[in-house]
Amino acid sequence: MMKRVFIKDLVVNGEETVMLRGWVHKIRDLSHVSFIMLRDKSGIIQLVCTKEQIKGLRLENSIQVTGIVRTNEKALKEMEIEVSSIEITGKVYYDKLPFEIQGYKEKVSLETQLDYRTISLRIPKKKAIFKVQNEIEEAFRMYFKSNDFEEIHTPKLTHSGTEGGSEMFTVNYFNRRAFLAQSPQFWKQMMVGAGFERVFEVGYAYRAELHNTWRHLNEYVSLDVEMGFIKDETELMDIEEDFLRYLYKHLNATCSEELKMFDVEFPTELNIPRIPLSTVQEILLKEFNKKSPTGNIDNEGEALFYKYIKEKYNCDFVFITEYPTIKRPMYAMEFEDNHEITKSFDLIFKGVEITTGGQRIHDYEMLKAKMEKLGLKLEDFNFYLDTFKYGMPPHGGFAIGLERITMQILNLKNIREAALFPRDMKRLTP
Amino acid sequence: MMKRVFIKDLVVNGEETVMLRGWVHKIRDLSHVSFIMLRDKSGIIQLVCTKEQIKGLRLENSIQVTGIVRTNEKALKEMEIEVSSIEITGKVYYDKLPFEIQGYKEKVSLETQLDYRTISLRIPKKKAIFKVQNEIEEAFRMYFKSNDFEEIHTPKLTHSGTEGGSEMFTVNYFNRRAFLAQSPQFWKQMMVGAGFERVFEVGYAYRAELHNTWRHLNEYVSLDVEMGFIKDETELMDIEEDFLRYLYKHLNATCSEELKMFDVEFPTELNIPRIPLSTVQEILLKEFNKKSPTGNIDNEGEALFYKYIKEKYNCDFVFITEYPTIKRPMYAMEFEDNHEITKSFDLIFKGVEITTGGQRIHDYEMLKAKMEKLGLKLEDFNFYLDTFKYGMPPHGGFAIGLERITMQILNLKNIREAALFPRDMKRLTP
Repeated sequence: MMKRVFIKDLVVNGEETVMLRGWVHKIRDLSHVSFIMLRDKSGIIQLVCTKEQIKGLRLENSIQVTGIVRTNEKALKEMEIEVSSIEITGKVYYDKLPFEIQGYKEKVSLETQLDYRTISLRIPKKKAIFKVQNEIEEAFRMYFKSNDFEEIHTPKLTHSGTEGGSEMFTVNYFNRRAFLAQSPQFWKQMMVGAGFERVFEVGYAYRAELHNTWRHLNEYVSLDVEMGFIKDETELMDIEEDFLRYLYKHLNATCSEELKMFDVEFPTELNIPRIPLSTVQEILLKEFNKKSPTGNIDNEGEALFYKYIKEKYNCDFVFITEYPTIKRPMYAMEFEDNHEITKSFDLIFKGVEITTGGQRIHDYEMLKAKMEKLGLKLEDFNFYLDTFKYGMPPHGGFAIGLERITMQILNLKNIREAALFPRDMKRLTP
Repeated sequence: MMKRVFIKDLVVNGEETVMLRGWVHKIRDLSHVSFIMLRDKSGIIQLVCTKEQIKGLRLENSIQVTGIVRTNEKALKEMEIEVSSIEITGKVYYDKLPFEIQGYKEKVSLETQLDYRTISLRIPKKKAIFKVQNEIEEAFRMYFKSNDFEEIHTPKLTHSGTEGGSEMFTVNYFNRRAFLAQSPQFWKQMMVGAGFERVFEVGYAYRAELHNTWRHLNEYVSLDVEMGFIKDETELMDIEEDFLRYLYKHLNATCSEELKMFDVEFPTELNIPRIPLSTVQEILLKEFNKKSPTGNIDNEGEALFYKYIKEKYNCDFVFITEYPTIKRPMYAMEFEDNHEITKSFDLIFKGVEITTGGQRIHDYEMLKAKMEKLGLKLEDFNFYLDTFKYGMPPHGGFAIGLERITMQILNLKNIREAALFPRDMKRLTP
């Protein structure tokens, strides 16, 4: 059988017949000739057909086509296919498409797009989001692998429900109660201690948060990093910043078309300011008369501070550092000379937090004392605490929400656009 | 600050001082000189120290070392470090290690190893398992990406509990009942239909199976593949076989040391026989007087058949094909001329099933009729069935259990050895 050619690989090649496969994107039936726009996973091409050949064809049929590639300066890619045969490989069963795919207008509600997810993903601009997301993940993996990090898979089913912070989903686990892990935090730290030293994970995290917002998902992909033998948290910010520079280069090299579709251009230089939270709060008060909650800034504060940073530093990112101890989890490392603040940071990207990170406590006695001070039941955490008895080195890490960074890079309005099958309080399908 | 060097990258380099980090693997305190074996993520090296320098050091302390690399033909890697300074970076808090790390003997029960997972993973041979597992995953990703497959992430939280087959875990999802997906089956098919055509996923699958065996995990990593526009299921076996050839080459190139630790050598050629289930059952009966259950073979049958295949074909793998319709899920494609059997296959590797795959039904009416015949509630499956209205091409796929293939490649006795933090009926920690 003839080998199938992807549209991206087509070249004008004399009289050689090629085979294409894909979906009927558009049909234009003129008086003496008919055109089909054929869409495959790699692109779109014009087919020149006889009226006989398009008989019975409907939009979104999947078809197998043979023909000869001809030059046509007026066609997309300056090529078209002179068709010799068309075979329908996938029938359609609809009266009317739920919305147009070719010629899609941004009028369809997000809910409808998500209800018909496998149809809305056929819209080239919707699919482009996931090309970019794929390359973010690829860049993450390449960058950290080349820096001696190893990929790990840690369990999402856990016996203990208290990392602190967000609510957790409960699972009926053989008539015991288990929880869905809200992050790989404990396990990635344990893997540093297990001698892997530098680890990363690409995996789901679960948050049973009771709000349905444009920037929350209840199931999301977390790009997690944990690194042993660090000097302090500044080394973590260094490496995240360096990764982001690498990411920009990688996306420019692999997604130029997709970035153009979203009017996104990256700056040629990236230098991310690092500002302590208390200073951020002062600036917000002084510049915008904006009051912040104790030990944090709220969504409005993040957005305003982005404006400030953009004007002053011409940068889309800012590290906010030195969060207060009472606002960070029990494993956060405090400053030696000030136990009120931690060696921690958030990374804000265009006004939205995409990373939380910091140095962790690595000394067994210090961690145990901290847990006791917070009234945690030690027996719930022995599986974690045990690791710290055996030479745990100074370490820390951070996590980047994959859907969040995708949303912010492409300036999407809702994080659900950056998940193939988003899960939220109301949505468990498709 | 001096840059840290990994042990794997050490070279004898004159009088230049280098910095190393890692754990104290072994201490040998002689009368006028002391030796430490230092272990980092990349290897082990001998440190030559004064008695003063090792004062207070205990096994598994993490340390930072500076010194000069010297040639020593009798030492590991024919090198050693003449130490100028040692600093303890991670204290230890134990009376006795739970088991020896240097000089580990295979006497410690698997349960104890798993209870002290972060300690047992420090044993070089235990860690080697995950180097190999990492490279299996890397090979999988590289192979399928280079064949125009895209990586996807599909939801693990689902509203519907009936793919058929194994039991599912239930989740309390905002006071509704949700399930943990037992495979990405529906969603990977939908992504083919969404125009991605060729997809793969590396993600957790959940099985609430009520048996605790050496080859089952309740949470495992599934390497899933789904491919559109196939001719039939033979194309899927072709691609899996080709991947396995690639995998052997990749592991030889990246894991030669680790494979040696497990006495594993790969054959230079791989040609996997494909035998229909009914023939397999006949052979088992004839050769081993072994009776098989209806429409399948049992564990003992798999083991015996491996013996047969090994002798007859000198191959560790065999595809068993043509499973009966009643034993396969509703989406399995039947043969046109015999609706009793499906275009499906299992791949048996050294007597253990590591893959289930096959062509799927792609016609909407056919799939709907099949669901109705099986008495499934269509409204539960509309989220899936809808995709088939819009030109679904012929397609199929398969899945490889990551821990299973790791176990079988390295001849491990229990699948738990191939999971960092295994989950089974009894184990939810660490």
